[in-house]
Amino acid sequence: MKKLFALLMLTGIAVGGFAQDNWVSLFNGKNLKGWKKLNGTAEYRIEDGAIVGISRVNTPNTFLCTEQTFGDFILEMYFKVDDGLNSGIQFRSNSIPEYANGTVHGYQYEIDPSKRAWSGGVYDEARRGWLYPMSKNPKAQNAFKPGEWNKVRIEVIGDRIRTWLNGVPTADILDNANATGFIALQVHGIGNNTAMEGKTVRWKNIRICTTDLETEKMAEIPCLPQVNCIPNTISEREAAEGWVLLWDGKTTNGWRGAKRTDFPPSGWEIRDNMLCVQKSDGRESANGGDIVTTRTYKNFELVVDFQITNGANSGIKYFVDPEMNKGEGSAIGCEFQILDDQRHPDAKLGVKGNRKLGSLYDLIPAPEQKPFRPGQFNTAKIIVKGNHVEHWLNDVKLIEYERNNAEWNALVAYSKYRDWPNFGNAESGYILLQDHGDEVRFKNIKIRELE
Amino acid sequence: MKKLFALLMLTGIAVGGFAQDNWVSLFNGKNLKGWKKLNGTAEYRIEDGAIVGISRVNTPNTFLCTEQTFGDFILEMYFKVDDGLNSGIQFRSNSIPEYANGTVHGYQYEIDPSKRAWSGGVYDEARRGWLYPMSKNPKAQNAFKPGEWNKVRIEVIGDRIRTWLNGVPTADILDNANATGFIALQVHGIGNNTAMEGKTVRWKNIRICTTDLETEKMAEIPCLPQVNCIPNTISEREAAEGWVLLWDGKTTNGWRGAKRTDFPPSGWEIRDNMLCVQKSDGRESANGGDIVTTRTYKNFELVVDFQITNGANSGIKYFVDPEMNKGEGSAIGCEFQILDDQRHPDAKLGVKGNRKLGSLYDLIPAPEQKPFRPGQFNTAKIIVKGNHVEHWLNDVKLIEYERNNAEWNALVAYSKYRDWPNFGNAESGYILLQDHGDEVRFKNIKIRELE
Repeated sequence: MKKLFALLMLTGIAVGGFAQDNWVSLFNGKNLKGWKKLNGTAEYRIEDGAIVGISRVNTPNTFLCTEQTFGDFILEMYFKVDDGLNSGIQFRSNSIPEYANGTVHGYQYEIDPSKRAWSGGVYDEARRGWLYPMSKNPKAQNAFKPGEWNKVRIEVIGDRIRTWLNGVPTADILDNANATGFIALQVHGIGNNTAMEGKTVRWKNIRICTTDLETEKMAEIPCLPQVNCIPNTISEREAAEGWVLLWDGKTTNGWRGAKRTDFPPSGWEIRDNMLCVQKSDGRESANGGDIVTTRTYKNFELVVDFQITNGANSGIKYFVDPEMNKGEGSAIGCEFQILDDQRHPDAKLGVKGNRKLGSLYDLIPAPEQKPFRPGQFNTAKIIVKGNHVEHWLNDVKLIEYERNNAEWNALVAYSKYRDWPNFGNAESGYILLQDHGDEVRFKNIKIRELE
Repeated sequence: MKKLFALLMLTGIAVGGFAQDNWVSLFNGKNLKGWKKLNGTAEYRIEDGAIVGISRVNTPNTFLCTEQTFGDFILEMYFKVDDGLNSGIQFRSNSIPEYANGTVHGYQYEIDPSKRAWSGGVYDEARRGWLYPMSKNPKAQNAFKPGEWNKVRIEVIGDRIRTWLNGVPTADILDNANATGFIALQVHGIGNNTAMEGKTVRWKNIRICTTDLETEKMAEIPCLPQVNCIPNTISEREAAEGWVLLWDGKTTNGWRGAKRTDFPPSGWEIRDNMLCVQKSDGRESANGGDIVTTRTYKNFELVVDFQITNGANSGIKYFVDPEMNKGEGSAIGCEFQILDDQRHPDAKLGVKGNRKLGSLYDLIPAPEQKPFRPGQFNTAKIIVKGNHVEHWLNDVKLIEYERNNAEWNALVAYSKYRDWPNFGNAESGYILLQDHGDEVRFKNIKIRELE
């Protein structure tokens, strides 16, 4: 795989166009004609044919933006950055009064000289956060050359965003949030850290291509991990891997109330591509009630993007038997706990954190250190292969366990599930989204059934 | 293996001697000359050249015994038994005033037409109970022919006892409890069960060989499971398998107090081949205190024969770190619980039986149905292979578990071990015998270290 990857990279570079006549320079090497500064007050100078951004204390992120906007394009440039200074290159970005008082927002090609080494990843500035953290593509994390000029390539064509760093493919995204916008060079805010003041980031040889894109664009790189950010869709690649939508993004098809034959008439809401639990009084399954799939699943990989509101409690259950608990409260099954660990009191209950986000509720605690992104959408993944089960959060495995054995039964016997016969040992079950009386939003609910 | 077994059986039969001149008949086919009845009042008649034993209510086991006693010999005969009637053939058995008022006791070749199918196994009548239950040798459990004549062969030479049923090797025992005694035909007691009255068991063609035994005896059958009942010894076969004594049967060598550098000066006693916890007040490690091995063990198979007194509590711990708990109470480690489930109050505490005999104490319950033999010695076996651990009782696996994972840690977090750091996850540890203030006896403590 590594060899194929390297080969494709080289091929990609060879195919990558050098037809100079399709390309236009965005910087004349002498002054900042065609650029304007927004958002912050960091300084931009010109030195030796390069734009130099200089960090300054007590200013937010500063952006040097093209006056022109661009839709589909290929952008190339070189950058050099001081140790310790985060930076980035915005594209299809905007500043409009209607959005956060004109805050610059949109796609950012990350420049990250830190140990994290996420350069080449893509961040949705001042909006959704990380679209393509480089943890998705660790093989490319050594592409950055500290203290040297680094070559950037960004291809933005239709719903497809791809990035390269020094010829190494770094990100591959499907997204449709912004069709057009300016390009901008970021000097990241440094707060009041005077030790950071005066750090620089440089850009040069900035050129863009907006014609003949189908000729100029790089070849496909099938082994590069792709992220599909278009809400509630299955990409070609996902379809080829067997993924299907478990929620269609528009209707209640495929779901019903856990304790009723139809979908709850209230308590749940579909808006802005999201399936939302409405806020009520925080009680378990007391308003609209839990919802479950209309069929059962046995071996599968399930992903669910979820966003919690402050103090919220919810969960994703599996191996659910809605017939088991006909009384009050939630239906019975294994639960990938969703919780605001910082604000909800249940985080402090249970045993050693086994009621915190990502835990197998009341049974197996997720690790304290986990890649939760507050305020943003996070991706829960549940993998079931027979008796082996895994919980993942944003591509990091939190826990795994084996069920249907004496150790599992002994653990259950200690938990609040002790009185439910044979808890967690069913061969198959329904999948459930929990109403715990707090507003929580779900989208991109996808499942892939396994052998 | 099956083929080899069959081949060896056939070879054995071929080698087995038919040199008539070495053999003497024990029954003349006409009357019971040379035999006497002991213990009970069941009837013995002669019909068609066979001795017929007839069951009778309200009498204990009855034995028709040879007047002559025998030391080393090979015994052959045929038997036929009615459905439902248990019976047996005693050998090297005795009836002396000094032992239980003359109760017949000693080795018994089992005749068991029940579904259990233990015919050919060896029981120590009115003394130690089962020496060779046929669960040791399940391949031979279909040798018995219901309703037909069955051929018995018993070889008793020195410390070696071997049995056959219809040419199938059934038992292989090393024992030195009795060097000589009579032969006897048992009619088992039936209590007051009148429905069983009149059931019969028949014996014929009873012959014995006491000379040229080395020539007459069967060949070795290495794949036949052998039981070593000679206290605190390692048989040749055990030695070849890597077993060593963890207790030498005579001294305190290799052991020390869990919280002291020497062996406890009181509270423990060595007598009659047994290492005994002396009775005190039932408190945990408050009298002599726990004892531990003087070195640690990593991967191993450990067997311990234990006998509890009424209401007793004790245990075998492993992965023990004696430095962990320097205060009162038992040293910390995983525990194969030893308990009188019927009489000790702890059996009802804990969760779903996780403090009963054979359980991983306070963590994983042994099944309710387990092959415990009240009053007798029972064999605990603990197998550790890295993170995989098993508890066995009398050749039956009770539980198995994996440690050093999130599920294990979650289970521990619920238990009384929750506050001991990284409980049960050590790569190696000491082995411990617990003093819980009740008299408990240990012997045949053997260990085999694994890779």
